[in-house]
Amino acid sequence: MQPLAEPITKLIDAFSQLPGIGPKTASRLTYFLLRSDESIALNLAQALQELKANTLFCSVCFNIADRDPCAICADPQRDHALICIVEEPLDVQAIERTREYHGVYHVLHGAISPVEGVGPDDLKIAELLARIQASSTGAEGEGRVPIREVLLATNPNLEGEATAMYIARLIKPLGIRVTRLARGLPMGGDLEYADEVTLGRALAGRSEI
Amino acid sequence: MQPLAEPITKLIDAFSQLPGIGPKTASRLTYFLLRSDESIALNLAQALQELKANTLFCSVCFNIADRDPCAICADPQRDHALICIVEEPLDVQAIERTREYHGVYHVLHGAISPVEGVGPDDLKIAELLARIQASSTGAEGEGRVPIREVLLATNPNLEGEATAMYIARLIKPLGIRVTRLARGLPMGGDLEYADEVTLGRALAGRSEI
Repeated sequence: MQPLAEPITKLIDAFSQLPGIGPKTASRLTYFLLRSDESIALNLAQALQELKANTLFCSVCFNIADRDPCAICADPQRDHALICIVEEPLDVQAIERTREYHGVYHVLHGAISPVEGVGPDDLKIAELLARIQASSTGAEGEGRVPIREVLLATNPNLEGEATAMYIARLIKPLGIRVTRLARGLPMGGDLEYADEVTLGRALAGRSEI
Repeated sequence: MQPLAEPITKLIDAFSQLPGIGPKTASRLTYFLLRSDESIALNLAQALQELKANTLFCSVCFNIADRDPCAICADPQRDHALICIVEEPLDVQAIERTREYHGVYHVLHGAISPVEGVGPDDLKIAELLARIQASSTGAEGEGRVPIREVLLATNPNLEGEATAMYIARLIKPLGIRVTRLARGLPMGGDLEYADEVTLGRALAGRSEI
């Protein structure tokens, strides 16, 4: 069997490094780029090179941003007394899309998972505590407001729940209100197919109408 | 809603240009690259830049290659009197994987499709005829052998069949043997679920055992 031209195998291998892209998809993408205008491949190449070069972590909330502090942390219209704790930067986007949240964020960059060897020290939990403490002393002046509420928006799975419990136990003694996203039936869901844990939570959390 | 950092949206947009990658997959890939080592993104960027810069079309068979003529056309071990006609460079790879074919190729870069406005002139058909003619005159000497057989390996669909018929009608008068890939039941297939056209072809093409 005749091997493929080296630039082709190289790109197929590079695409295969991405999650969810196997060798078949990688070669389909490569041949698409070979057939199509060179600008598509070059635009993608440029965007890839600029990705890490032009982004950084916000030193306040640890979200990925193009400036420090990020646009959310720098926005005076936001409620800086309300911090929403999320696992990943993508979760910030998910919450922003609701247009219902006007506080600020704190990105943990993971969840406590003994199986994967991720402990509290691997997450931005110490930074969260330092942030809360700094806000209450108000030592550094302008814009610093004492934290009123911490909303735990970690994922509703084992690791997310454990992380939320861990953080709640650390923050509650500071006299700050600690809340958690409501659990219940998803919109558009079907009662018949709801799992028992979700349905149980929906029953426990029922509200008057 | 807070817009994403510009380098992130730029990469998401660039990924979304690729076939089969929607905005959700594009942002999943982007955040994967943000989390992972920079070398993955930079390797991919480099491979993309080199793809078109370091590949060309073989002037004999029009396959994509890293040199001209391509490794297959330049191989003296190959049977240069047998040309396999395929639609796309990926089809060459599919046939090479069987390790059962030892002739050379001719890549049409498409199939006749009136619906998509692709006519015979948009394909490498004139180049195929010129190649056959040149081989029979043998004017340019070494390595040139008269074509003995043309194997039509276009796709077994409407466009592929039409293209095969069109080429067969052009080449048969030249006194060259024109063959077509066998149609029949795919290996691992199930008679019960075979469509009637495939089963009909399998019956018509039955062979003694």
